[in-house]
Amino acid sequence: MWNKSTDAFLGCDKSFEEAEIILWGAPFDSTTSYRPGSRFGSSAIRRESYGIETYSPYQDRDLTESAVLDCGDLELPFGDTAAVLAVIETHTREILEAKKTPFMLGGEHLVTLGAFRSVLQKYPEVGIFHLDAHADLREDYLGVRLSHASVIRRCWEMVGDDRIFQLGIRSGDREEFRFGKEHVRTRMFDLQGWEEILEKWAGKPIYLTLDLDVLDPSVFPGTGTPEPGGVSFENLRRVVTGICQKGQVVGCDVTELSPPYDVSGASTLVACKIVREILLAFQK
Amino acid sequence: MWNKSTDAFLGCDKSFEEAEIILWGAPFDSTTSYRPGSRFGSSAIRRESYGIETYSPYQDRDLTESAVLDCGDLELPFGDTAAVLAVIETHTREILEAKKTPFMLGGEHLVTLGAFRSVLQKYPEVGIFHLDAHADLREDYLGVRLSHASVIRRCWEMVGDDRIFQLGIRSGDREEFRFGKEHVRTRMFDLQGWEEILEKWAGKPIYLTLDLDVLDPSVFPGTGTPEPGGVSFENLRRVVTGICQKGQVVGCDVTELSPPYDVSGASTLVACKIVREILLAFQK
Amino acid sequence: MWNKSTDAFLGCDKSFEEAEIILWGAPFDSTTSYRPGSRFGSSAIRRESYGIETYSPYQDRDLTESAVLDCGDLELPFGDTAAVLAVIETHTREILEAKKTPFMLGGEHLVTLGAFRSVLQKYPEVGIFHLDAHADLREDYLGVRLSHASVIRRCWEMVGDDRIFQLGIRSGDREEFRFGKEHVRTRMFDLQGWEEILEKWAGKPIYLTLDLDVLDPSVFPGTGTPEPGGVSFENLRRVVTGICQKGQVVGCDVTELSPPYDVSGASTLVACKIVREILLAFQK
Amino acid sequence: MWNKSTDAFLGCDKSFEEAEIILWGAPFDSTTSYRPGSRFGSSAIRRESYGIETYSPYQDRDLTESAVLDCGDLELPFGDTAAVLAVIETHTREILEAKKTPFMLGGEHLVTLGAFRSVLQKYPEVGIFHLDAHADLREDYLGVRLSHASVIRRCWEMVGDDRIFQLGIRSGDREEFRFGKEHVRTRMFDLQGWEEILEKWAGKPIYLTLDLDVLDPSVFPGTGTPEPGGVSFENLRRVVTGICQKGQVVGCDVTELSPPYDVSGASTLVACKIVREILLAFQK
Amino acid sequence: MWNKSTDAFLGCDKSFEEAEIILWGAPFDSTTSYRPGSRFGSSAIRRESYGIETYSPYQDRDLTESAVLDCGDLELPFGDTAAVLAVIETHTREILEAKKTPFMLGGEHLVTLGAFRSVLQKYPEVGIFHLDAHADLREDYLGVRLSHASVIRRCWEMVGDDRIFQLGIRSGDREEFRFGKEHVRTRMFDLQGWEEILEKWAGKPIYLTLDLDVLDPSVFPGTGTPEPGGVSFENLRRVVTGICQKGQVVGCDVTELSPPYDVSGASTLVACKIVREILLAFQK
Amino acid sequence: MWNKSTDAFLGCDKSFEEAEIILWGAPFDSTTSYRPGSRFGSSAIRRESYGIETYSPYQDRDLTESAVLDCGDLELPFGDTAAVLAVIETHTREILEAKKTPFMLGGEHLVTLGAFRSVLQKYPEVGIFHLDAHADLREDYLGVRLSHASVIRRCWEMVGDDRIFQLGIRSGDREEFRFGKEHVRTRMFDLQGWEEILEKWAGKPIYLTLDLDVLDPSVFPGTGTPEPGGVSFENLRRVVTGICQKGQVVGCDVTELSPPYDVSGASTLVACKIVREILLAFQK
Repeated sequence: MWNKSTDAFLGCDKSFEEAEIILWGAPFDSTTSYRPGSRFGSSAIRRESYGIETYSPYQDRDLTESAVLDCGDLELPFGDTAAVLAVIETHTREILEAKKTPFMLGGEHLVTLGAFRSVLQKYPEVGIFHLDAHADLREDYLGVRLSHASVIRRCWEMVGDDRIFQLGIRSGDREEFRFGKEHVRTRMFDLQGWEEILEKWAGKPIYLTLDLDVLDPSVFPGTGTPEPGGVSFENLRRVVTGICQKGQVVGCDVTELSPPYDVSGASTLVACKIVREILLAFQK
Repeated sequence: MWNKSTDAFLGCDKSFEEAEIILWGAPFDSTTSYRPGSRFGSSAIRRESYGIETYSPYQDRDLTESAVLDCGDLELPFGDTAAVLAVIETHTREILEAKKTPFMLGGEHLVTLGAFRSVLQKYPEVGIFHLDAHADLREDYLGVRLSHASVIRRCWEMVGDDRIFQLGIRSGDREEFRFGKEHVRTRMFDLQGWEEILEKWAGKPIYLTLDLDVLDPSVFPGTGTPEPGGVSFENLRRVVTGICQKGQVVGCDVTELSPPYDVSGASTLVACKIVREILLAFQK
Repeated sequence: MWNKSTDAFLGCDKSFEEAEIILWGAPFDSTTSYRPGSRFGSSAIRRESYGIETYSPYQDRDLTESAVLDCGDLELPFGDTAAVLAVIETHTREILEAKKTPFMLGGEHLVTLGAFRSVLQKYPEVGIFHLDAHADLREDYLGVRLSHASVIRRCWEMVGDDRIFQLGIRSGDREEFRFGKEHVRTRMFDLQGWEEILEKWAGKPIYLTLDLDVLDPSVFPGTGTPEPGGVSFENLRRVVTGICQKGQVVGCDVTELSPPYDVSGASTLVACKIVREILLAFQK
Repeated sequence: MWNKSTDAFLGCDKSFEEAEIILWGAPFDSTTSYRPGSRFGSSAIRRESYGIETYSPYQDRDLTESAVLDCGDLELPFGDTAAVLAVIETHTREILEAKKTPFMLGGEHLVTLGAFRSVLQKYPEVGIFHLDAHADLREDYLGVRLSHASVIRRCWEMVGDDRIFQLGIRSGDREEFRFGKEHVRTRMFDLQGWEEILEKWAGKPIYLTLDLDVLDPSVFPGTGTPEPGGVSFENLRRVVTGICQKGQVVGCDVTELSPPYDVSGASTLVACKIVREILLAFQK
Repeated sequence: MWNKSTDAFLGCDKSFEEAEIILWGAPFDSTTSYRPGSRFGSSAIRRESYGIETYSPYQDRDLTESAVLDCGDLELPFGDTAAVLAVIETHTREILEAKKTPFMLGGEHLVTLGAFRSVLQKYPEVGIFHLDAHADLREDYLGVRLSHASVIRRCWEMVGDDRIFQLGIRSGDREEFRFGKEHVRTRMFDLQGWEEILEKWAGKPIYLTLDLDVLDPSVFPGTGTPEPGGVSFENLRRVVTGICQKGQVVGCDVTELSPPYDVSGASTLVACKIVREILLAFQK
Repeated sequence: MWNKSTDAFLGCDKSFEEAEIILWGAPFDSTTSYRPGSRFGSSAIRRESYGIETYSPYQDRDLTESAVLDCGDLELPFGDTAAVLAVIETHTREILEAKKTPFMLGGEHLVTLGAFRSVLQKYPEVGIFHLDAHADLREDYLGVRLSHASVIRRCWEMVGDDRIFQLGIRSGDREEFRFGKEHVRTRMFDLQGWEEILEKWAGKPIYLTLDLDVLDPSVFPGTGTPEPGGVSFENLRRVVTGICQKGQVVGCDVTELSPPYDVSGASTLVACKIVREILLAFQK
């Protein structure tokens, strides 16, 4: 009788027990320096998923056959960044302890740090596949170390050299690129070479963190810091599907959709479709 | 752990058994002749209720103490008006049969017809209190009799003369006003006289139908057909609170919020606050 | 078969011969210093008039019984202000020579100058009733004398002292107010006193020029220079209706609707309703 | 004197007798399940065509040399889908009986059904070239058979197997694709192969139905259901021009522009330019 | 030659030495729980002040005759609330030590706490005049004590009972109102009684903190948490002008303009005009 | 202490003496026939440059090492086109006389005429590289010769045949293309062949005028007259960088950003990044 399907992403309402993948939102954007709004990202993805199908003609798979639970959004204490990350960390740990795959929807990119802490604890060998327009390798931003502009630097401090693989990067300050050359592996401007990386990393666990602003702003204007010169939807779709089908992805996140900046809603649907394709790629 | 409170209007998630009032959405706007969008009204009211408090300083009452269940939106077959009204009628009947008060959120004003049919069946003596900018008394609109512009005319066909009380009307064609003078009781332009009507109707059941465009467009621009020259929020709040506190309201609806037309979100919050005040006024 | 009614304001498509009032648009906004967009005003009023009725319950009159022709918009040479005013002047003269009442929709307020030149030629005794938030009495704006901020000053140069009656003025520079005190009659902040002025000017021809920003921005945000602290819709409706019913209005204009600044469309409907009420007030 | 050119698409105001192509609008969107607004499509195309030229450097042809009449929008009875389709069917028949080519602007895609009924009656051999992101092959949508999601299925019921050629399809449910494989010819994801199809269909009449959401949402965000991963403007321009220059197109439509979802107006101009190129391609 | 006037609020570019009032922006909104965007408030006020005059006909004073310096926006470390407040506190102290009046533009309401700490240090007897829709008296918000919803509670902890005077309050939870009754003086719903309070507080220093959402959302939709049922522009203008003309105001702030939520720009102009009137009221 | 960096484009605040490149804005759009708004272009580029980095990974150069002064916007007399062009001409001359490179940000494309007059006086051999969607070669527009649609025709009158090189042109009337074939060199639809032209023009001075609508509207919807079918960001970036690195560019402008038409802000960031890349390409 009631349209319950609107409450979860594409009807993903398995019980926690049944579910193999746990999807949830981390609606936080307080360290965003330019334009906030990504706090509305996860709820928009959930709500507007109604506009796409559960079936993917790309993969010939249907989400109704996946074991996914969308738990909704975490309630986060705005104004206390460390506490926010701790909440995310705890909940990711609970999901991992239940032997399920965590899939977080941002929010700004800093939320990755909370989830990754728990993933790293469980998978000490994990590597990071990082798709983004921005290097996110700053030591700090105006003295603040827990910043969306420093999130990958914070991750590097935990994993060390040559465990972070960046794709699509096209913005940063000189120091970030200098640092990057020394400590992480960066593919500039496009996503080429992902298959070689995947091959080298074969058999090892992967955390996939996708900042959607890796897409060109024509495709994805609904983000806090659009950076012209990015990749196409079709290109991104192939790469993330490939990584999740062939790699051993043990956790992932999709961040930086900021719906207020795209009133057409197309950016939200881009995010929905990428999330659907990732979820389906996990069907093995 | 999860922010479940975002799923229901202001956290109104009592069980069906506990609940005395059942709130739900009828996301339909297909007969809207000018500008569609009210289909998004009920879900916006639910979602954005997060921006107001459960406590009302006007009434010194708190919604956490009310027995209300928000069931979510009905799934309606777009493109078949008669079928849509039938779905609404059936569900209203189920609520009434369970001895609960139905409270519907539109959607366009035509949805009233579906709910009212069931209310009338249970309360044959019911009178209609109709707050609106438009008379809605047309025989038909381009030959279509099930139209938002004809909904009160259709109601009149069921109840006959002197059982419909209109307040705030300031738009219609000549024929509607001629018809209105003969068959219904209309207060033009403002809401004065509501207390006298209430007194006369004392002890008899009331169906309250509120088309939010009775408000001035400065207060409520987010509607399909804004009609300049309407009433203030404070004025409307007092009248609807008064009717629900003092009258025997056996069912009600709030319609015609069209969120896309007010990007500030203020119209949605006006609707949220009016719905909260009505719900609280039912606490007796 | 075809919906021809959308082509003219509220179906006002009498032939030129039948028509007593000629309505037209002057889509010009090139001297606007702050925010352009009023060029879209007249076409929006025409198009969106579909959202209101031809019948007015305020006056119990119907526009279908008025002899009005809406001619559409003039084609104006953008970038040459003097030429634009000359086009407006010529066309107003043709209307006056045919013994019809000219009713111009702006565009920015400067368009008044073109129309008023022809009105003054035919009615040398004409007085100006000027409703506006801004005094528009600057000698020039950055050296430009044909500016929306100088339009009433230019009119004053043609008619001299005590023939211009300003209502609702609440903005200007010190010099404008000093000048105004000496040469024109100004009612500050609100519209009070209009009946006394009308009485004194009884029997003499009136040109009514209405800059819609006299309204409060809450009622009318869709304008180039919103000025907080203005009058209500109901107040304006009464005053303009009163002037046109009781005064000898020989020409008028309604200017400064800038639709892009009000996506709700409410400002456009305010303009539509004011234009309808003025047209109906001319029925005598 | 008056800017009459704004009343018709790019000044296409030949008399009915002179005209070889009749262009008109069908402003209907009542079965749209996700987001309405395409009812404003045809009028926006007409109005905003002012922003492009009549001359095409692609084809070195000028629309001023074409025999086209733009009749404006049909007045349609909102809320009664069957009646709306009947109105469209009747008017298409009148155009065909006058030996002119019907060219309809939507509105939602369902309007195709009304026009196609008459086209099929006159050209029993007609094949459908269907460019779209969505298969539109559902048996029904929530029990409603006259739905924008079922329009091609309804057409198939009339023409049978192997007479419908789909291009660019990238969304649908599993059942639609299963059905499609059996009964229609579908090119997935892009427009390749159109020349082969055209060759095979040489000499036979074609009805071209273009749902503009076949374009990528970056190019065309102004539509009810944007589907990421579509074709480019240049690609679509070449294909539709090619079909109309080389094929025997006896009727066509362009649907699903929803202007409110693209405030930049770029989507509307995309539609305008595609319509211009199609009209010019008919010059033989 | 260059239009330098756009760089400061209404051309307020006196040197620091000459200036008696120092105006600046605190572009911070990280604790905003509902909708961010007030970080853009101060820069919008500065930029759009171009749309109003320096002269006030209400007070017959001109800002060109005031000794005001607009210093621009502080650079604040997003993501570290305590550090942000410390920066504000330091700079306010520098202004006070130079014997000038600090006038801060928000940002969210929490910024008041930073400025008030320094004001209290210099004026231990200072009282707070607090105009707002919301009580802002929560002990904490989801455990966060430095929150926009707790700012007045934090101030109360520093000044104790009966030194905070609230006007216009119409929202809060039950506990806030209970606390308010005991510890602060609150005028509910409107601004009446301000003159009596001012009289009682005669001769004592005042800190004026104005959360612009005290205005009705019809007047001021551009704010994070619009609360229907507020005061009019004219009412607010009179009260703040009166307080600053007659009271001994030693510091003030104007907060919670969130420009993205009002695309008409009217809210920003409301803020500009209120800031201008306050600045002019300081001319004694 | 104060965030002065927001006042100039990407912190370009060298002294006039130090600076080698002078950047400034010409906020004029009065001859725009379709949709105004480019007057807000230069200030938006300045303000929003905060959203990109000073460092370019494409060129491995940093703007902090460039000698650039951003002077802000010229104050222009709206409504007097000839006077506006004279102001621009004078200021360009002053920059050239000080042996610096002028770099103007529009405003509409007509502003090029003012700057080019002074450039031509100093460099009589200068050639024009013109990137645009529109030919801009009309003799006049409705009789107005100083029009954005005629700006390159006016330039041609000063330089004669074969000194103007157009790239990316895809719109104009038949007469413009006829004229173009005879008098200027035009590359239709894309930017190919720019290297050959540059080679031929080696050693001779170049004025680069970039109308940003040469970009596809998907990339750059924020412009007055979006013309579907344009080039990609990456393509444009390479070409303008190449011209400025290898050619002897003595002056340039970037015009026709109209921020109100792209609420995502992506168009503004595209403009910012192109301006940054051009400035960096001048580092030799």
